Amino acid sequence: MITNIDVTLRDGGYRNGFNFSLDYAFEHARQSVDASFDWVEIAYLKGSFDPTKSTGLTGRGDPDYVRALARHVGPDHIGLIGHPSNLTCGDLAAAYSAGARLIRLCLTASASQSDLALLTAAKDMGYTVCANLTRVSRLTPRQIAELAFRASEAGADVVYLADSNGSLRPSDVGSLVNLVDKITPSAVGLHAHNNLGLALANSLAAVDNGATWIDSSILGMGKGAGNLIAEQWMAYLDRDFAIKCRSVDLGVVLELSDFLAASVAESRPALPMTDLLMGHFDLSIEQREHFRGSHRDSVAAARDLQGVVS
Amino acid sequence: MITNIDVTLRDGGYRNGFNFSLDYAFEHARQSVDASFDWVEIAYLKGSFDPTKSTGLTGRGDPDYVRALARHVGPDHIGLIGHPSNLTCGDLAAAYSAGARLIRLCLTASASQSDLALLTAAKDMGYTVCANLTRVSRLTPRQIAELAFRASEAGADVVYLADSNGSLRPSDVGSLVNLVDKITPSAVGLHAHNNLGLALANSLAAVDNGATWIDSSILGMGKGAGNLIAEQWMAYLDRDFAIKCRSVDLGVVLELSDFLAASVAESRPALPMTDLLMGHFDLSIEQREHFRGSHRDSVAAARDLQGVVS
Repeated sequence: MITNIDVTLRDGGYRNGFNFSLDYAFEHARQSVDASFDWVEIAYLKGSFDPTKSTGLTGRGDPDYVRALARHVGPDHIGLIGHPSNLTCGDLAAAYSAGARLIRLCLTASASQSDLALLTAAKDMGYTVCANLTRVSRLTPRQIAELAFRASEAGADVVYLADSNGSLRPSDVGSLVNLVDKITPSAVGLHAHNNLGLALANSLAAVDNGATWIDSSILGMGKGAGNLIAEQWMAYLDRDFAIKCRSVDLGVVLELSDFLAASVAESRPALPMTDLLMGHFDLSIEQREHFRGSHRDSVAAARDLQGVVS
Repeated sequence: MITNIDVTLRDGGYRNGFNFSLDYAFEHARQSVDASFDWVEIAYLKGSFDPTKSTGLTGRGDPDYVRALARHVGPDHIGLIGHPSNLTCGDLAAAYSAGARLIRLCLTASASQSDLALLTAAKDMGYTVCANLTRVSRLTPRQIAELAFRASEAGADVVYLADSNGSLRPSDVGSLVNLVDKITPSAVGLHAHNNLGLALANSLAAVDNGATWIDSSILGMGKGAGNLIAEQWMAYLDRDFAIKCRSVDLGVVLELSDFLAASVAESRPALPMTDLLMGHFDLSIEQREHFRGSHRDSVAAARDLQGVVS
């Protein structure tokens, strides 16, 4: 049974400074639940990795905002994500009290014991807890296995592989999902980015290999090249009876898509070629500054950064 | 070894009335060959299925145009496609004489003996010949097998499966490619459309199952939701050493992409949701008129057209 998270309001926030209006977020969350998403990830709690760059409504996740949306669509659809470095147990408790019921904590290879303790605390509060292993394309399978194991031991209901660089191919995803699925009792999820146009193929490979939680966003609105395009994913689910999920209402999905397109200019679909190159060479968005001049120059720069002899 | 056809000038023509300028076609073909495409499909010969709607430069494939491009990039990169109903042996001979060396003939389930005789004649003239089985999602496996067998017997070097409705999933493509590969000595090709965001996943499934000819277009510029996006396909080929092809120059591919984007407004990438629905319900572009009003109404209309009880 697939659990679907709509990450538009959060990951899409990278495109518009997290400045969705409250009215927009209200209507989006309503339609998202109607369209059959299990969870709506409504914000970063207390900011993204760099909290100074995520001061808009969906970059903060203030309790008033959480409360308003939880009253509107019900707590059991309200999710938040956060970086342990920005969070205290008090923040998690306040968000739970305001009505959030899903929390996702981003973990890197250098995750500390206190990061994992936060995860355990969230679990004890009553949250459904995801451990989101970020930038997995830059980790070794051994690092991923260790981190997944620690997160699972700490209480994570779901271990998410986040392809932050948009660099994985279906065969990579299949292997990694399989690995995590074998060594932990937690469910496995995939958060795909579409730099290489592989977000859908990768999500299918993930599900084929045992993943049961999938992130997507309307129009693919998300950081860089964007996320798995929810409209395409939901259309696939609606047709493939081998993959079990809540019954999809594709008409509602597409109306939400029109609503986003009409409401938020930054949601316009694009095919950014610099992001394709960055995914191709498994580079992070912070390395984008090296990509200037012609694409041929960028390819040369990327090979240098990657240390690959062409 | 993969053979790549760049179909931008032809399938992309559906977006701009086939009105690419001669200057644009010249430069595009040059860069396409430099980028590592084996063949540039420069036009419909004597028009598309409805020749009255394809009167622009790349909708006709006049001998002067073919000659100019063949002199510019060499005959061994010059391809044309056509519908047998629009063509005579004389047309094929004139195009060959002007420098075309690849001809693709579109075949439907009702292909006549004279259609196949035209294919044989093309082969005898010296062309590399592809039989393009159109709208394969609407054919039974038996119809596809029979048509592939007849085309192969008639001399087709390649039997192409054209997913004209953009409706196939990777598992469908894998089965059909496998089927055709088993029953004919011809090579097998895939022409994908991206209505469901599956063009890349489908092309990978095709290659995994034995296909060796793949169509793509720059920015995916093509009919409806467009084709396999060449930039993504070439990036994949550049990284996956298990798939053999001419060495890809990704920098040149991306410069061609910028050149198209800057030269042809109609090449702008889009995510057309009506086309997604049409692919989802396996409907042809001619049935688009039924899709008016809200997406919910369209879903209902599509289910009626499809005869599916929801």
